[in-house]
Amino acid sequence: MFEPKTPYLAVDGIVRVWEGKRFKGIVLIERHYEPLGYALPGGFVEVGETVEEAVLREVKEETGLEGRIIKLLGVYSEPSRDPRFHVVSVVFVLDAEGTPKAGDDAKSVHIFPLEEIPFEKLVFDHARIIMDYLLVQ
Amino acid sequence: MFEPKTPYLAVDGIVRVWEGKRFKGIVLIERHYEPLGYALPGGFVEVGETVEEAVLREVKEETGLEGRIIKLLGVYSEPSRDPRFHVVSVVFVLDAEGTPKAGDDAKSVHIFPLEEIPFEKLVFDHARIIMDYLLVQ
Repeated sequence: MFEPKTPYLAVDGIVRVWEGKRFKGIVLIERHYEPLGYALPGGFVEVGETVEEAVLREVKEETGLEGRIIKLLGVYSEPSRDPRFHVVSVVFVLDAEGTPKAGDDAKSVHIFPLEEIPFEKLVFDHARIIMDYLLVQ
Repeated sequence: MFEPKTPYLAVDGIVRVWEGKRFKGIVLIERHYEPLGYALPGGFVEVGETVEEAVLREVKEETGLEGRIIKLLGVYSEPSRDPRFHVVSVVFVLDAEGTPKAGDDAKSVHIFPLEEIPFEKLVFDHARIIMDYLLVQ
């Protein structure tokens, strides 16, 4: 059978955490695996799930939070964005309530106010993604 | 090495054809291969190219038109949207000038005014994609 060879597909989430009407910040995880550093919660899309299902699953697995998808932010596909191989990421903005807890793949998980995002420690192109998010707000 | 297993990645284009300031319609191709019917121009993303490069390449290959990307319409990822396997499509809106000519994978290529789109002959979820496009205009 014809088998296309295409880039791997991933999802990432800009998860905005709220305490009632008070905005607390966005969630970053400290990665357990290479490349080490901070990252948006996310991961590979599984065959048989939609990208929306994938981002809700990954956010839940990595942070314990039940996200609610607000909108699609963009599709990030520069071949060099992941040092391992070509991964295209579909990025969503989500809202969530509660306290995140580190799960799979995460050493720790933190809420960062927008003014305190550690841009210099972000892996992949996540600094660019968060800048895009801040600029379209 | 770790090899993720993810859905295949494709792109499709809603190509709006203009003659100067006059809007002519959008381009549909009549497919050469199964599933037979009409489809938006598009195809699989190659490893090493961005999704923007992929949609411009596919539009050029299948219609001969030089497209200009206007915006991202959405990401379509229902596992059943392609009867062959799970393919996620990143859909862009593009503008182009000139007369399309059938290329690879296309039996023929036509410009359809928005009022004359053959929804019943569209393959995959392209009827849904075009409806989404018409509704966000």
